[in-house]
Amino acid sequence: MKLASLKKGRDGELIIVSRDLKQAVKASDIAPTLQAALEDWANVESKLKARSDELEAGKAEGSFAFKQDDVDAVMPRNFQFLDGSAYLPHVERVRKARGAELPPQLLDDPLMYQAVNDGYDSPRDPIRVASEDYGIDFESEVGVIVDDVPMGVSEEEAGKHIKLILILNDVSLRKLIPSELAKGFGFIHGKPRSALSPVAITPDELGEAWKGYKVHLPLITHYKGEEFGRPNCGVDMQFSFARLVAHAAKTRPLAAGTLVGSGTIANRDESLGSSCLAEKNVLEVINEGEAKTGFMRFGDTVKIEMLDADGNSIFGSIEQTVEEYK
Amino acid sequence: MKLASLKKGRDGELIIVSRDLKQAVKASDIAPTLQAALEDWANVESKLKARSDELEAGKAEGSFAFKQDDVDAVMPRNFQFLDGSAYLPHVERVRKARGAELPPQLLDDPLMYQAVNDGYDSPRDPIRVASEDYGIDFESEVGVIVDDVPMGVSEEEAGKHIKLILILNDVSLRKLIPSELAKGFGFIHGKPRSALSPVAITPDELGEAWKGYKVHLPLITHYKGEEFGRPNCGVDMQFSFARLVAHAAKTRPLAAGTLVGSGTIANRDESLGSSCLAEKNVLEVINEGEAKTGFMRFGDTVKIEMLDADGNSIFGSIEQTVEEYK
Repeated sequence: MKLASLKKGRDGELIIVSRDLKQAVKASDIAPTLQAALEDWANVESKLKARSDELEAGKAEGSFAFKQDDVDAVMPRNFQFLDGSAYLPHVERVRKARGAELPPQLLDDPLMYQAVNDGYDSPRDPIRVASEDYGIDFESEVGVIVDDVPMGVSEEEAGKHIKLILILNDVSLRKLIPSELAKGFGFIHGKPRSALSPVAITPDELGEAWKGYKVHLPLITHYKGEEFGRPNCGVDMQFSFARLVAHAAKTRPLAAGTLVGSGTIANRDESLGSSCLAEKNVLEVINEGEAKTGFMRFGDTVKIEMLDADGNSIFGSIEQTVEEYK
Repeated sequence: MKLASLKKGRDGELIIVSRDLKQAVKASDIAPTLQAALEDWANVESKLKARSDELEAGKAEGSFAFKQDDVDAVMPRNFQFLDGSAYLPHVERVRKARGAELPPQLLDDPLMYQAVNDGYDSPRDPIRVASEDYGIDFESEVGVIVDDVPMGVSEEEAGKHIKLILILNDVSLRKLIPSELAKGFGFIHGKPRSALSPVAITPDELGEAWKGYKVHLPLITHYKGEEFGRPNCGVDMQFSFARLVAHAAKTRPLAAGTLVGSGTIANRDESLGSSCLAEKNVLEVINEGEAKTGFMRFGDTVKIEMLDADGNSIFGSIEQTVEEYK
């Protein structure tokens, strides 16, 4: 089952989207918003599934053409976004860029921060930033959405609370980060709003590619129209999503609709490219002596997408252009 | 005007409370929840004010006795909680306890972290923690709630977005914090859910005590039934709430209902006591050679309250008991 949100108010209007992303049908009579659906998932899931089956069979009343250019973020806002950093090749490279070492505890203690959840950019929204001097960067990631998770949940139980999967662009302002992190309390300025994919999917949509609570497919990033990276999300992921959810819930419950992110996808195999400019710059310094790529300029574009084995887009694409905020 | 939320669903039901906290009247026909009111503040403020005036005049239809023991957190959940740390005496003392110095940039660059907003404890909820070994602590704070704040807002404009004031208990798990902060990305385990006061108030309720976007009154904490501290919130606050809101909004808009906290209230004058156990322990080490107070045990109580010049409770009290979470 694939779900999306039409633009409507602060929370959007829930729709079901066909597997091929070509057709859609409203579901707001079942649950008005995706947030509402997740708060009552046990009751609404089967109803949504039944309508999804109708849509796939071409029998859904009131179905219409799905246009990923027009939808809101699949969750226009939610109540929590905890972003992990499960790909240690990324952590190592970005810390190297800041002159920092990888603390050994990160091998078995997930790195995670509390990110902005009061609004997400839609998949076609510009990335609005006041200055190019902030060091504008994208980060291509996968995320999962849970229903209500009790405090202290085990890793095994945590996996059962994963209801949806999506992809996202975790925008980073690299040049604001070092002085902010030096203060010791995490990100406020360095991580503005993220953009979410047009569509979120139930895990069963991935078939064999959802295994061990990891997504075993490449996430493909294009920067300024050219392929920039296609690391495999199932490779070098130190902590599964089940582990990340359990980590997040150690001392507090997680409200339904909480988004838990994977962190920037990165593989040790450098030939697969990167999922953010910071890594590319670090690799250039290591391999060529100096950083050449720099960061995003006003007008630059980024496109993030995941394809299935047949080359079809799973979540729709995130396509954003950097725009000066005045 | 004073507002509160009856327990009802995930967001409560909006009520108006009389100045003396004795009477209340429903306001859910004007806006169903406090969150909804803040999202449409320009339209609903005058309607809420008119009903508040009726309530004060003893003419509000359907008024009932207000019981602060029964209400939910004034906002049972919202979309963002950014907690500043504006009282540098607190920052200095707590860092000293961790063996860390005060970075000089903190004198003109506010310390702030993104805190848990997907659920707040009600003012009488227990503090549920799995283990006393976590180093359970309270932090008595003041916070403000804003309407929609645009990205990049000036300090002067930011002040105008402050619509409500409240007090809160920012629960901290001290012994989980050092290893977590060593990872560099802020708090996940060390700062679980906070409790909010029974009532939030519009700034005009404070009269002369609201000046320069600071609250010029003591915040009184009782620990295990004895007075623990009464530092003045208007003293040694390095950054006003207007400044904290502007800081928070530098690279992102803030959604209506965002809570911006002051950080633990602390004065240089040690005779006024503290607003958290961590400070008390540090001062004991400095002045007596060893920490004697320790942290909260199961069954320990904390009470946080602010009184006006006549000794009347302004926000109602937060009264919590630590309870083992199993």
